[in-house]
This record gives sequence, structure tokens and C-alpha cells, in this order.
Amino acid sequence: MKVLVLNCGSSSIKFQLFNMDQGEVLTKGIVEKIGLEDSFIKLEYNGAKDVFDYHVPEHTKGIEHILELLVSDKYGTIASLDEIEAVGHRVAHGGEKFGQSVVIDKKVAAEIKTLSTLAPLHNPNNLKGIYAIEKLLPQVPQVAVFDTAFHQTMPDYAYMYAIPYEMYEKYCVRRYGFHGTSHKYVAEEACKHLNVSMADQKIITCHLGNGASIAAIDQGQSVDTSMGLTPVEGLMMGTRAGNLDLGAFTFIMEKEGLDLEQANKMINKQSGMLGVTGISPDMREVRDEAAKGNQRAELGLKMYDYRVKKYIGAYTAAMGGVDIIVFTGGIGENDDETRKGSLTGLEYLGIRFDNSKNEGVRGEQKVITADDSNVTAIIVPTNEELVIARDTQKLINTK
Amino acid sequence: MKVLVLNCGSSSIKFQLFNMDQGEVLTKGIVEKIGLEDSFIKLEYNGAKDVFDYHVPEHTKGIEHILELLVSDKYGTIASLDEIEAVGHRVAHGGEKFGQSVVIDKKVAAEIKTLSTLAPLHNPNNLKGIYAIEKLLPQVPQVAVFDTAFHQTMPDYAYMYAIPYEMYEKYCVRRYGFHGTSHKYVAEEACKHLNVSMADQKIITCHLGNGASIAAIDQGQSVDTSMGLTPVEGLMMGTRAGNLDLGAFTFIMEKEGLDLEQANKMINKQSGMLGVTGISPDMREVRDEAAKGNQRAELGLKMYDYRVKKYIGAYTAAMGGVDIIVFTGGIGENDDETRKGSLTGLEYLGIRFDNSKNEGVRGEQKVITADDSNVTAIIVPTNEELVIARDTQKLINTK
Repeated sequence: MKVLVLNCGSSSIKFQLFNMDQGEVLTKGIVEKIGLEDSFIKLEYNGAKDVFDYHVPEHTKGIEHILELLVSDKYGTIASLDEIEAVGHRVAHGGEKFGQSVVIDKKVAAEIKTLSTLAPLHNPNNLKGIYAIEKLLPQVPQVAVFDTAFHQTMPDYAYMYAIPYEMYEKYCVRRYGFHGTSHKYVAEEACKHLNVSMADQKIITCHLGNGASIAAIDQGQSVDTSMGLTPVEGLMMGTRAGNLDLGAFTFIMEKEGLDLEQANKMINKQSGMLGVTGISPDMREVRDEAAKGNQRAELGLKMYDYRVKKYIGAYTAAMGGVDIIVFTGGIGENDDETRKGSLTGLEYLGIRFDNSKNEGVRGEQKVITADDSNVTAIIVPTNEELVIARDTQKLINTK
Repeated sequence: MKVLVLNCGSSSIKFQLFNMDQGEVLTKGIVEKIGLEDSFIKLEYNGAKDVFDYHVPEHTKGIEHILELLVSDKYGTIASLDEIEAVGHRVAHGGEKFGQSVVIDKKVAAEIKTLSTLAPLHNPNNLKGIYAIEKLLPQVPQVAVFDTAFHQTMPDYAYMYAIPYEMYEKYCVRRYGFHGTSHKYVAEEACKHLNVSMADQKIITCHLGNGASIAAIDQGQSVDTSMGLTPVEGLMMGTRAGNLDLGAFTFIMEKEGLDLEQANKMINKQSGMLGVTGISPDMREVRDEAAKGNQRAELGLKMYDYRVKKYIGAYTAAMGGVDIIVFTGGIGENDDETRKGSLTGLEYLGIRFDNSKNEGVRGEQKVITADDSNVTAIIVPTNEELVIARDTQKLINTK
């Protein structure tokens, strides 16, 4: 069975074509700068790479180009579009409606549209991909895999905010969390690697990428996570503020005369590692500067680790213990210093971090604690597209 | 030595007259509803209580009334105002300038005024009390004891926010924390009670009152605390929101069309326990309703405990362990259910909570964990006025 996975953003479409029978990726790529004059498509296929300067004015045209490439004589990996048996979409916000992946019909599409109020920058773009496939491949079933779904098992005392209850009743304001597909996948992979059952483990998954979130997973269920109604809450990120005193926020808005749009821009685009260091949202560039003695770079790195560490402590308390700590995402998978910094000082939990297992490890599934450590820390490269493909396959097969 | 302690708010003045030699409170009371027609003064003296319907148009007049009462034939506890050797003031915000208590001179008063930008609702009222004493008792030295001072030992990675660094440079936006006098006092009292040296203890102090904050105190120094630039951040409080997704906050502001004043009112006055339950900011009233089966009351109580517990976990991680957990403040001292709820599930830390020691205990200094518990939890009634009086005495004597 061949499944196409799409992740549609405002100006980009990531895509991967899976052959589920062999468990392999046939083609993957990204359409960039949709709507701009210099839009292009990057493609990886049969071990080769290419870039195509296509003019892509909008999403449907972008997906049309993708489909052409998939079956083209020169770059294609399938003979006919009929081979695509299903399309899986990453959808940002499933609200309280979707606790799991679902086959898309008119009603589901309408729900995703309604939920755009909660994710105005994401759900509408996800829908563009869905409508495009409906038009271009009308016979092919589509599945929505929600970034929020895995966290729908959180108890109310973890997802409710301490604000007027009417905000929940009127607008569904509550914690939803994101990166659910990733948290679930890496927790499962970690359990497989360690040969334990997820049903009796307390797991903390640290998804540390440009966006970053942590989840507490008890007996296979997400019981808390650091992102909230929006992806701004929680950890310090590349350009997002994470947790901040609301009073400090209104103080700044007043002093700087910011309107809501400007305030949102500050906390989403100008904060986090970039804001503190003034260097870059990219951890590697910040590390380079810190190595040269840049004080603000050092501060940013210390803040980053400290916040991860406090969340690990908080979620251990939330679950009454922890058995496994997973690192994933661009930083979690590749930055040994961040893993070291966030685990140092947690010996009271029975963690015996072993830096000789950690140092220099990049993108490899690997335990980084000593064999006799009470808590196992492990690196697991994430693969959200694979989860989307698997969920899609499962739902289509059982339909 | 007799010391008068003043805590001046916008419409009230709390006062206590201490005889430091005997370590006793001679008179205490509060001026209420300053500026309103029905203002009054409550007085406790020589074991008796009285209420006086005085018209108190502004702070100086209020303090004039207090001084009259202190030396009056019928209600007085001293013969002459000359007996008052010093006045100590609670001052809300000492910014980065004041890491400890200080004798007030013109320069200090000017600094406190400058710091009003950080605490516009508090410092100006504190100053009114200082100016009133300067006028009424010009010979008497005055001392400022800052609510923020104890937390000035926090490391930068704990007090900096992940927002543009310019906000710190331009406006001193950072975490300061409050309740410092209380956190310090109860940590010291706990160590005395347990006969240990604060210099080698890791302590978490939970000040749970109508306002609430938690502090991590390592080797006698505050290394982190939950309140921030303002007292809105951190725990769920009576009417304050504590931690909330910034993105959810701007979402609500947009949906409800709130300006900054209305938004501040929501997060300060309409949130917290009151906001979630719709019942009351008062824990006792919420417990009564929960006992009758009110679901939102139950939710509010669960949220409250859960958030305290997560902070305990986070601060244990921040310090790399914990030896003592202290409960203080109206709720911490008097609400056995909150103490139980926030400690349950922390057995992984080596805490052996003993509810038979906890149940029904109100306002009493008492250990509530088993004798063989690795972590000691203890109730310590706070006494901020006593700390202010002591600091005042010490500074005046060494002047």
C-alpha cells in the first residue's frame, strides 16, 4: 500500500510518499515560497536530489506539481497515481473533537474549518491540502492526523487554566498541546528499544526542535504537556517566549505601545533563544558564539537547559515518578550539550547520566544513562510522517 | 526598643507596635477604607479589641490617628511617642537596587519612587507612609524592608525571561518575586525547629495565601521563585491567574475586545480560584461547595494542589534535591487538605507524608511527615511584621 503524507503550511507543503509494505519512503520533498515569484520544489527520490523552479501561486497548483513529479518518467517512483491508495494530512488543531486520527469526510472537513478559530495560522492551510487532493484525486480516501490528538487524555485539572471559566465555555480556551504525533511515536519507540510495555511506564518526552514541548506520558496516555491553547506556552524555543509573567507581558505592551498583532509577533517571532541572545534562533549558532565567550549566548543556553530540567522535575511530580526520559527533535536528537545540561543535577531521581554514551551522538536511537540507572534517558529520532502514514493505512484498511 | 511596623496599601494601613526587648506585640490594627466616608480603624491592645469610626481622607491622617491611639489614656500601650525608636515599612518592590533592608534617607526614598514604574499599585502607597512618618515623627529613623529583596540572589538563568533582551535593558523586565520576607522567615523558623543549619539545606517554601508563591532556597539563598516581575505569575491564587499561555491570553483579549486595563483586571481580579469555580477566592467557601458536590469547586481544588505539586517537583529539580518543604500563609497554615493534596504522590522523593500529623492542624508550627521521611514537610505560621521589626531594630542599632 502506498500512502502520500502532506503537511501544508501557509507558504510550504512538505510531502512524503511511503510504500507501507516495504516500510520505505519512495519520494520526499517540500514546496517552498508558495505565492511568491521564486517558489520552488525540493525533491528526494531514488537516492537522488533535485530542485525545480516552479511557479506555485497557491496550494492546489503545488500539489498538482508534486503529483506530476511522483509519476514523471525521470523523477517518479510510481508508475501511476492510481497506486496512491490514501493521503494522510497533518492537521494542527483537533480541539476537543478529535482524540485520534480520522477518515476525512465532509463533516470532518467542516469541523477542521470550525477549529480554525483555535489555530487560525494552521488549520486553514491544512484544509487547502485536503481540498486540493479532493479535486485532484477525488477517489482517494484522506485521513487527518491531529497534532493535538494524543494529548486529549489529559485530566481536566491539567488542561484547565485558572481564568474565568466562561473563557472555556465560550471559546474552548484550555491547554491542548501539540507535537502529539511525535511524543507518541518516540515514547513507543523508546519502549520498543528498552523492551518494556508502555502500559506500565512513566515517560517524559522532550521534543526539542525549533518549536519545543515536553509531555508526561503515564501508562501510555499523555497526562500533561507544556504547550497550551497555542504553541507559545512552555519551554523557551527558537523564537517563542514560552512561559512568561502575564503581568510582565501587559507591562511591556503598555511601555512599548504594542497592539495585539505586534505583541503576538514579539512572543512568537522575536523571543526565545533569538530574543535572549540577539544572535539566532539556531542552537548551533548560539553554541558557536558561546564558545567565543559571548555572555548572552551562554545565558540563553543556561536558560534553555534550566527550563527543560524544571519541566522534567514538574512532570515527574505530576506522575509520581519517572522511568524513561526521551530526547527528540532537532536539538534533542543532535545537541549533546543540551541533553547533558538538562539531565545534570537530577541524580536525586536515580538518574545516572553517562556522558560517554551521550557525547557527539547525533540522530541515533541510543540510551545515554548507565546500565544501572533507575531512570533511563534515551535519544529517539522522531518521525511524524511515518506515524501519519501508519495511522492513515490503519484507518483505510479497517474502513 | 519599641518599633512600629507599617504596611501601607492603597486604601489601608496595617500597623504593629513591637516591644523588641520582650519580643511582644503591644498594639496592632488596621486602618480600612482610606478615602471613603465609612473608613474605620480596628485596634487590638492589651488583650482587648475595638473599632473606631474615624474619617480618614488620606494616609497621613490615618497614621496620625494610629499614633494618637498608641498613646491615648484608654487604648494606649506606650506613654509617649518618644518611646518609638524606629519605624519599619514593608515596601513592595526593591528592583535590582535593594537586595536587603535599608535605612531610609532622601536617596532611598527617591529610589523607591523610581521603582514605582515596576510596582505602580504598591510603591507609591508605601511612600505615602514613609512621608507621613517623616512629617509626624521627624526625629525617628525609618527602615524599608522589601518584598523582593530575599530573591535578589537568584541566578540570571532563573530570573531572565525568554523575550527580547532589550526589555530587560530598557525596563528592567525580569523575575523579581515577592513574599521574600515570608519565605526567608519560615525557612529560618523551619531550620530552627528541626535544629539544622539553613546553610546546608535545600528548602522549598510554599507561601499559600490569597496571593501565593513558592521559593527554592538552596544553602540559605533564594534560587528561584514563582512570582515574576509582577505578582500575577506562578501558582493559581484567589483571583490571580498564575501561569497561562501568552497565546491564550492574546486570543482572549482579541475575542473579548479587552484593552490592557480590562485584561489586567481579568488576570488579577477575576481569575484564579474565583474564576475557575465562580464561587469565591476563599478556599474555605470553595471547600464547602465541593463537599456539596459542586464539580467546578472540585476542579478548582484539584488544579490548586496540582500546580503546587508541579512547582515542588520543578524546584526540587532546580536544586538537585529537597530536604524541607514548608507550608505557610492562610491556606498553607490552615488548610490540611491542600497540604495533603500537594504532597500526595511525591513518595518518589522519599517523602513519607503522615496525615495523622496533618489533619485538622491550623496555624501551628508542626512537622507533618513521618520521623523516617527523607524529606521533612513542616507547617510554619509566617510573621512578616516580626521580620520587618527585627530588620529595623538591627539596622538602627548598627547605624
